[in-house]
Amino acid sequence: MPHTSQRGQAMPESPIRKLVPLADKAKARGIKVYHLNIGQPDLKTPQVALDAIRNIDRTVLEYSPSDGIRSLKTKLAAYYHSFNIDVTEDDIIVTTGGSEAVNFAFMSCLDPGDEIIVPEPAYANYTAFAIAAGAIVKPVVSSIEEGFALPSVEKFEELITPKTKGILICNPNNPTGYLYTRSEMNKIRDLVKKYDLYLFSDEVYREFCYTGAPYISAFHLDGIEENVVLIDSVSKRYSMTGVRIGALVTKNKDVRKNVIKFCQARLSPPLLGQIASEAAMNTSAEYMLEMYNEYVERRKFLIDGLNRIPGVYSPIPMGAFYTVARLPIDDADKFCAWLLSDFEYEGYTVMMAPASGFYTVDGLGKDEVRIAYVLDKEDLKHALIVLGKALQAYPGRTI
Amino acid sequence: MPHTSQRGQAMPESPIRKLVPLADKAKARGIKVYHLNIGQPDLKTPQVALDAIRNIDRTVLEYSPSDGIRSLKTKLAAYYHSFNIDVTEDDIIVTTGGSEAVNFAFMSCLDPGDEIIVPEPAYANYTAFAIAAGAIVKPVVSSIEEGFALPSVEKFEELITPKTKGILICNPNNPTGYLYTRSEMNKIRDLVKKYDLYLFSDEVYREFCYTGAPYISAFHLDGIEENVVLIDSVSKRYSMTGVRIGALVTKNKDVRKNVIKFCQARLSPPLLGQIASEAAMNTSAEYMLEMYNEYVERRKFLIDGLNRIPGVYSPIPMGAFYTVARLPIDDADKFCAWLLSDFEYEGYTVMMAPASGFYTVDGLGKDEVRIAYVLDKEDLKHALIVLGKALQAYPGRTI
Repeated sequence: MPHTSQRGQAMPESPIRKLVPLADKAKARGIKVYHLNIGQPDLKTPQVALDAIRNIDRTVLEYSPSDGIRSLKTKLAAYYHSFNIDVTEDDIIVTTGGSEAVNFAFMSCLDPGDEIIVPEPAYANYTAFAIAAGAIVKPVVSSIEEGFALPSVEKFEELITPKTKGILICNPNNPTGYLYTRSEMNKIRDLVKKYDLYLFSDEVYREFCYTGAPYISAFHLDGIEENVVLIDSVSKRYSMTGVRIGALVTKNKDVRKNVIKFCQARLSPPLLGQIASEAAMNTSAEYMLEMYNEYVERRKFLIDGLNRIPGVYSPIPMGAFYTVARLPIDDADKFCAWLLSDFEYEGYTVMMAPASGFYTVDGLGKDEVRIAYVLDKEDLKHALIVLGKALQAYPGRTI
Repeated sequence: MPHTSQRGQAMPESPIRKLVPLADKAKARGIKVYHLNIGQPDLKTPQVALDAIRNIDRTVLEYSPSDGIRSLKTKLAAYYHSFNIDVTEDDIIVTTGGSEAVNFAFMSCLDPGDEIIVPEPAYANYTAFAIAAGAIVKPVVSSIEEGFALPSVEKFEELITPKTKGILICNPNNPTGYLYTRSEMNKIRDLVKKYDLYLFSDEVYREFCYTGAPYISAFHLDGIEENVVLIDSVSKRYSMTGVRIGALVTKNKDVRKNVIKFCQARLSPPLLGQIASEAAMNTSAEYMLEMYNEYVERRKFLIDGLNRIPGVYSPIPMGAFYTVARLPIDDADKFCAWLLSDFEYEGYTVMMAPASGFYTVDGLGKDEVRIAYVLDKEDLKHALIVLGKALQAYPGRTI
């Protein structure tokens, strides 16, 4: 039997999905599992998107252009303009989810051995796609004590080598919910300019900013227009993660030229998802506001509730729909597995993502979990009660 | 401006899609272009698949499991059984098109520098995905004179080095339409066994076999069950290339373990495409027979017509819906571009894929094109007339 690739072996398991088999077993035992592990909003997909699918009048579900349907790109450009992001249709390449945008960005910009600097904790799949591309993630660690603010410029500069090709940020941040300030974004801009780096900027949560502070896109930064590769997705803002439509946006023609070749190799992004996405761009302002208000309330509710559980601490996330919380436990991986395998409270348990998977530095995040607030308040309320009971019962508790 | 990746620069442009800008310009001039370049069937998608989309009753278009919806996998297993392919749901991983199955197969089995042997001409995107994975394609050249039969075992063995990790075949073949015989498949099996290689077997055209000869799947070969990685797609058999649903099928647990990690990184295959695909598996036998008969006729019609044009030669393809034909021209890349830029016959022209893109050996296929017979007979008839006229008018003609 031939041996498999070292690259494949080195790929991380998803911290968000690796516990799914245990969750399935818990469900098979009749236990109700609250999914706080995954960014799958429970909100209804906008009716206009569902209607576009239900009313589809095509008779052949055919390939679309490799870079996406033009009319979708036109709508995306108008959408970005509404955020003062000055791009044209030609700067936009439609991808199979934001995931593929990350993958193609790395493949197109980075060679094996190239390094990118990523503030951690970070979305685990950046590391996965870096490994796929043979690139190396150099982490700059942000800490829960400082609310996951951007580490100092000096910490970035310490990591810069001739191999450094880019910085990756996620803003608003998954998993921490942190929203970068203008001052922090300017620091990133200066670094990018000084060392002529790519700035990979994942901004899929831009609709989810809860403070008065403005959302600063990488495209709002002057003088690095050619360095920016923006990652986007319709998944979160229209509660339609399953359609698998995202976008890679860059003014850098050389990057686009490479990306298009990766696009051609996989032929086209999903047609039905593009149809749903184009329609979703007509979602009413009421839907968007209602969704926004719902997350504002859930956030307050979750963070208040978490911080009332003895020994638990969560900073207040300013965006996205996640928080990274510290728990009074020995090991979040063990705890999260135990919740599914050995615990129930009146027939319920909770599933969370151990934060260790969001750090590449060994040992970090050991007592932290990522919690997604994608359930309604009643479920969140009960999930918090279940979590509190679990923390009392867990053999590895530290208080 | 940071430089882009060498890998991205090395990626080939799709020979099937690279002429699209010229075709768009021709269309803008009011010229009707017959698309013989791309495997996009014109046949209607089965009504059951369209109905499943039109009647969708979900309110949230959510992530599916990373390896695909279980009920779809169950149907796929039953489908494979009908071809005497003995696999279970657990051996099947749903992918975003057959393209992703190729990509994940290479990423999971091959490391940078590893080699795979591929009979050429071959589907161009294998090379693209090999480059993405840092792997090296070693071509074994089959020739139009021999009807693109499998080259001798000796030619394979000459290429085997300690770096050789696998053989890739496409059966029935894209672009040649060749169908491997039992004897040829046994030779491949013996090589795979002798050198303990992976056998990557792309069998997406299995429904399209036009001779009495049986379709031999890689899974029909005894003693290499753990070596086989089968690539599949619903795109061609249900005329729904846009849904982007394929499958990677292997009994090799270690390979699956790696593949699943790549699946998790991209979260899930498209939900809507999976719903359409599951429904499509209930397509009536009548539809499948009608489609089959249609291709049988088109094939006869196209090949007869091609061989009647002076100086043109096409072998008779036994499967898929392509042929590689030799034309009396200096350079197929120039000719195919000229057809779109400089030629029209009564307002019509044809678009074909230059065969050079299906060879990795420089200079091969220079007077060959791939022609897809995915148009109805009336269009094919007229396209052949237009092609004949073009060959008379082309300045680089050789007769």
